Amino acid sequence: MYEGVVQDLIDELGRLPGVGPKSAQRIAFHLLQADRADVQRLSEVLAVVKDKVRFCDLCFNVSEDALCRICGDSRRSMSLICVVEEPKDIMAMERTREFRGRYHVLGGAISPIDGIGPDDLRITELMRRLGTEPIEEVIIATNPNLNGEATATYLSRLLAPLGMPVSRLASGLPVGGDLEYADEVTLGRAFEGRRLIGG
Amino acid sequence: MYEGVVQDLIDELGRLPGVGPKSAQRIAFHLLQADRADVQRLSEVLAVVKDKVRFCDLCFNVSEDALCRICGDSRRSMSLICVVEEPKDIMAMERTREFRGRYHVLGGAISPIDGIGPDDLRITELMRRLGTEPIEEVIIATNPNLNGEATATYLSRLLAPLGMPVSRLASGLPVGGDLEYADEVTLGRAFEGRRLIGG
Repeated sequence: MYEGVVQDLIDELGRLPGVGPKSAQRIAFHLLQADRADVQRLSEVLAVVKDKVRFCDLCFNVSEDALCRICGDSRRSMSLICVVEEPKDIMAMERTREFRGRYHVLGGAISPIDGIGPDDLRITELMRRLGTEPIEEVIIATNPNLNGEATATYLSRLLAPLGMPVSRLASGLPVGGDLEYADEVTLGRAFEGRRLIGG
Repeated sequence: MYEGVVQDLIDELGRLPGVGPKSAQRIAFHLLQADRADVQRLSEVLAVVKDKVRFCDLCFNVSEDALCRICGDSRRSMSLICVVEEPKDIMAMERTREFRGRYHVLGGAISPIDGIGPDDLRITELMRRLGTEPIEEVIIATNPNLNGEATATYLSRLLAPLGMPVSRLASGLPVGGDLEYADEVTLGRAFEGRRLIGG
């Protein structure tokens, strides 16, 4: 529709999640009129992000080093581990300022419809950590939806033989939603009211 | 909140219009997991877009050359000129396939609240074109909202002494909306039913 590079830009922006064709066009024209320095900064950060960002060796949070900031922080408790689906869920938990332990990122949730089973998640890595780290309680903070609940149930059964307390964030989170969208107070309360589901 | 370059990426994405903090985070994590080649392409098109894209010397449409594709197309009528607010409105008009003349992009609309007056638009350039090009009718296709109507009224009064037909897209476009969002049929009908408001 547009000439050369303008259409290229609209096409590339339109590939981003949640950006439809109209939004892509609006963003493209915004960029065409924006300061050259702003556009350059966005271009540069995109150019380096894939090289600079890796996943934490321990918890699989996003990180620029072998260990993420949380795993590398000696003030964080080694005895509590909070299992989440994605790195963004760590940020949601951190905003509550309720939790002072460490995390483990599964990299998703069990979803039979999408063909995602336990083997596709970082569960082996979690079991290894439970064997080597002085962990005393596992808090499962998967999303309060169907896949998140299925994953929590699977994990609680898998961990049962270890005789370790396994808890799940309290309901109080709106069911059917995503953990990422909960406000800090709701999420903080859900954390305080977590209930034992195994161990 | 995040480490270094991940937060930089979220910040830069969050500066785009219509991209809130949650969307910026979602897009950033999508990019972290996307193919390196996809991210690279977006980075590269952003790097060149400001250098490659300019505005057409005649109509101020986006262009990679001195004249845009429409102004450089000898099959387009020289006698009709359609005045729009923004380059994206040209694309909306073109999708109707009803108009075979040329365009003039004002670069906005009169908006007293935003401090945008006639002097901030490319009206002098329009008047110059009316003096030098064999134009027989001016079609005003500003948005059917308050600012667009104010701009149309201003232009029709300014052009009245020229004794040239000046028309406005027919209502049929939902008032209060943006031209960009009209479907092709509605916009095509509005074009066919344009009414004289001067000349």
